[in-house]
Amino acid sequence: MSYLEQEIYEQPEVMTRLLEMDRQGAQGLARAMREREVQYVMIAGRGTSDNAGRYAQYLFGSMNRLPVALAAPSLFSIYGTPPRFGNALVLAISQSGQSPDIVEVLAEARRQGALTAAITNAPGSPLAEQADHVLLLQAGDERSVAATKTYTAELAAVALLNAALSADAGHMAALAAIPSAATRTLGLATDVARVAERYRFVDRLVVLGRGYNYATAFEIALKLKETNYIASEP
Amino acid sequence: MSYLEQEIYEQPEVMTRLLEMDRQGAQGLARAMREREVQYVMIAGRGTSDNAGRYAQYLFGSMNRLPVALAAPSLFSIYGTPPRFGNALVLAISQSGQSPDIVEVLAEARRQGALTAAITNAPGSPLAEQADHVLLLQAGDERSVAATKTYTAELAAVALLNAALSADAGHMAALAAIPSAATRTLGLATDVARVAERYRFVDRLVVLGRGYNYATAFEIALKLKETNYIASEP
Repeated sequence: MSYLEQEIYEQPEVMTRLLEMDRQGAQGLARAMREREVQYVMIAGRGTSDNAGRYAQYLFGSMNRLPVALAAPSLFSIYGTPPRFGNALVLAISQSGQSPDIVEVLAEARRQGALTAAITNAPGSPLAEQADHVLLLQAGDERSVAATKTYTAELAAVALLNAALSADAGHMAALAAIPSAATRTLGLATDVARVAERYRFVDRLVVLGRGYNYATAFEIALKLKETNYIASEP
Repeated sequence: MSYLEQEIYEQPEVMTRLLEMDRQGAQGLARAMREREVQYVMIAGRGTSDNAGRYAQYLFGSMNRLPVALAAPSLFSIYGTPPRFGNALVLAISQSGQSPDIVEVLAEARRQGALTAAITNAPGSPLAEQADHVLLLQAGDERSVAATKTYTAELAAVALLNAALSADAGHMAALAAIPSAATRTLGLATDVARVAERYRFVDRLVVLGRGYNYATAFEIALKLKETNYIASEP
């Protein structure tokens, strides 16, 4: 079994661990956001983590009516004229916590006195060090270059923060069902392989999704490009 | 000559007209933004107009340090739970001013008491009616389905507003040179046609750009898809 496949099968346990171990952290961050009267969330991420940011845009918007802006890291790295954050939460998402441009967004937010948070798999990383609040992905090492378990862990961390922000306790309770739903989905692998056969020789492909699944349409398209060299368009 | 080609050649005169006729309007909007202490800009647009929003993200960010969020219209249309805008400028961009979901973003912004503006080619459109401030594209009818002169007019309107927001009067003065630069570029058509020959049979293509040109990389990719059915990826 490849690392890629191994890591795909680790998803349910990663999510179980994350939902348990990050719950207090998410509640602490939600509290800080209320105290600071955060007006919108500015998210910085690249590639897969940028897609997790798209999920946050729909989830925070629809369930907590919080606007989300996706940061343009070149404003920090090329132009050297970062925006004024005002009373935003500046949230960086990076599996490795090493991306210099993403670290720079948080460092600037800190200099401006904005509330900062990181979602990362790496506790001691430069990114984690810049953040007031850290939600850890609890995913163990990711050895495959194509992100799998860390993508869904990023979504879970976003969903956990969203539930902590919500006045409806049902959102937090609903999260508990996710790991077993993931296990059931992984049980469909043989059927999925049979269906996928039809597309064996495809070289152009469109991936459709909207609302909460818009982010994952982008992520599937990215994954197909990275691993199959298909011109797939979200 | 096709409508498409005709409209491409109209760009310099459209921009000349826009820069002259919308100048006061842009200054009025900039004044309102300062008075209301606007903290960030939420932009709603689809397709080509969404790309003009991307340009605003880089331009407002780098020159006026204003964060820009791109609205997710399905938060309004599918989920019915629009975000709270707080002290945002809510700016809608639509050539026709008819898109129901874009009109709904402005209508909601109005209900919330946020400052609203529209960039549109259609003065009497539903979108223009919802906006406190309107910048008109001054582009005349666009008969081709693929937007050309209205895309660059949208960029010019964004640049005009950006210059009006800026403390540096040089930005406003620099805009005057744009129409003649566009005329010079259009004079390169024969050379461009010769270079393009090499790509006659391409069916997959990547369009690269960053910073201020990131938006136009998206727009070129969109244009190639719409008019040549090429799987072009920004």
